[in-house]
Amino acid sequence: MDERAHLKELQEQVEAALRNSFRGREPRGDIYDAMEYSLLAGGKRIRPVLTLEVCRMCGGDPALAMPFACAVEMVHTYSLIHDDLPCMDDDDLRRGKPTNHKIYGEATAVLAGDGLLTAAFETALGEDSPLPPQRVVAAAACLARAAGAQGMVGGQVLDMAAEGRAVSRYDVEQLQKLKTGALLSAAAEMGCIVAGGSEEAQKAVRRYAQKLGMAFQVRDDMLDVEGNEATLGKPVGSDQANEKTTFVSLLGMDDCRALVEKLTGEAVEALAPFGAERSGFLCWLAEALAGREN
Amino acid sequence: MDERAHLKELQEQVEAALRNSFRGREPRGDIYDAMEYSLLAGGKRIRPVLTLEVCRMCGGDPALAMPFACAVEMVHTYSLIHDDLPCMDDDDLRRGKPTNHKIYGEATAVLAGDGLLTAAFETALGEDSPLPPQRVVAAAACLARAAGAQGMVGGQVLDMAAEGRAVSRYDVEQLQKLKTGALLSAAAEMGCIVAGGSEEAQKAVRRYAQKLGMAFQVRDDMLDVEGNEATLGKPVGSDQANEKTTFVSLLGMDDCRALVEKLTGEAVEALAPFGAERSGFLCWLAEALAGREN
Repeated sequence: MDERAHLKELQEQVEAALRNSFRGREPRGDIYDAMEYSLLAGGKRIRPVLTLEVCRMCGGDPALAMPFACAVEMVHTYSLIHDDLPCMDDDDLRRGKPTNHKIYGEATAVLAGDGLLTAAFETALGEDSPLPPQRVVAAAACLARAAGAQGMVGGQVLDMAAEGRAVSRYDVEQLQKLKTGALLSAAAEMGCIVAGGSEEAQKAVRRYAQKLGMAFQVRDDMLDVEGNEATLGKPVGSDQANEKTTFVSLLGMDDCRALVEKLTGEAVEALAPFGAERSGFLCWLAEALAGREN
Repeated sequence: MDERAHLKELQEQVEAALRNSFRGREPRGDIYDAMEYSLLAGGKRIRPVLTLEVCRMCGGDPALAMPFACAVEMVHTYSLIHDDLPCMDDDDLRRGKPTNHKIYGEATAVLAGDGLLTAAFETALGEDSPLPPQRVVAAAACLARAAGAQGMVGGQVLDMAAEGRAVSRYDVEQLQKLKTGALLSAAAEMGCIVAGGSEEAQKAVRRYAQKLGMAFQVRDDMLDVEGNEATLGKPVGSDQANEKTTFVSLLGMDDCRALVEKLTGEAVEALAPFGAERSGFLCWLAEALAGREN
């Protein structure tokens, strides 16, 4: 199996599904333009890929997981739009392009985020799904829990509270678990729920996603130091400039490198119950993310 | 039946359920404080009352509709928080109290809105419901459609676009149907879905809610002219000061009064298929809202 080619194919399927999400919707001012501007701005589509591939690994049909894959990417995108607002992180650039409010203004950016968050649930709850409805409820509820004040929103609150003050490694880990980890984990778990995976499978998938999510964040902090601006599509060194406590500022680069390796190994190990063949792609994905340059 | 006493009882049940929504949640900074500040700031709780009473009228158990009643009020509350933001309507007062961002700051207000919108779906999708899961999916999907860019969010976009320019009666009606009407209608429809109401019942309920919603908005515009600031808990005359096109500026007070009466009559008529006894309270509610002073 050529994993890189398979990843590209998955990413293209996700792009196509996202592009279709609002097709035929009546324009209301420029709200759909603003929503699609950010939704279709590229990105690695890690979350939807996790949903689709976990579903396959657990014996389900990835096509049935696509609405949930799109939903989790909509939630991720809305969070970026709101995080970039002047009253939050006040960022002008995202993936090398002006942020949503720079193009559409603050009011429309707030509403575009609101619209995407709502569209996520509309998409997840699409009523023509052939899935057993209890799986639809379970997967959408999983997404809601991960996205809300106990998950991603709570992580952003902690992130703002951490600004400009000393925080411990424990604090940084807790923050990351909520801000990035919860949604990555929900992406994977939804795939397992769609496939009708067992409680055991669910547990293994959650462990994989949690380890992968933490490794992802540590690597992110490393790239802010050693990355290439052109490859990353954003300026490097911003964490240090903002005096932000990161895994790098806490542990140093060498220990971060070792930590990413350790966490990635644990992620791979968590999938052992599925066997090498079924879990092959997701193991490769964990390794690929650990070594990524953007 | 003493309708006013019954309304009060329903409102108290809703307050209790809303107060319980986030009980035991781990505090993350002041996010839950900010969410509850607005969620428990009073209000008539019209939307949840509609959900509960439509459920009863359609032969269902209102207790099973309570999660959806709370969910629709959370969506309504989040929309008020975001609408009040400086980049939107920039309002300092809401129901006689400082708006959310005046107390908690803009960033937390944005996140409190996001948290409430997400909590609405978490509440609606509560997995321990004894309802058939297809009803849970249908009701939550109904809420998502009404709240999103095709509904309430789309209405707010039109509202911003209408600011400072001449708009027709058709435009004002379209705007109202989305901004207020869609969510009121979903509130009622969810009650019918929870009860397992027929396609016919659903249609009648939707018609009732649409007429009631339009009457509600016309009465709102009238109160901005003839209302009492102390009773309303907000300044009157703001529409005229902002040169906003309203039903009053388009039709004049007398025609507005007649229109509210006509719409209320149509709302009541829509419930005829349910019989006088079952629909009694909701008919009374339509009349009460038409004559309300706040």
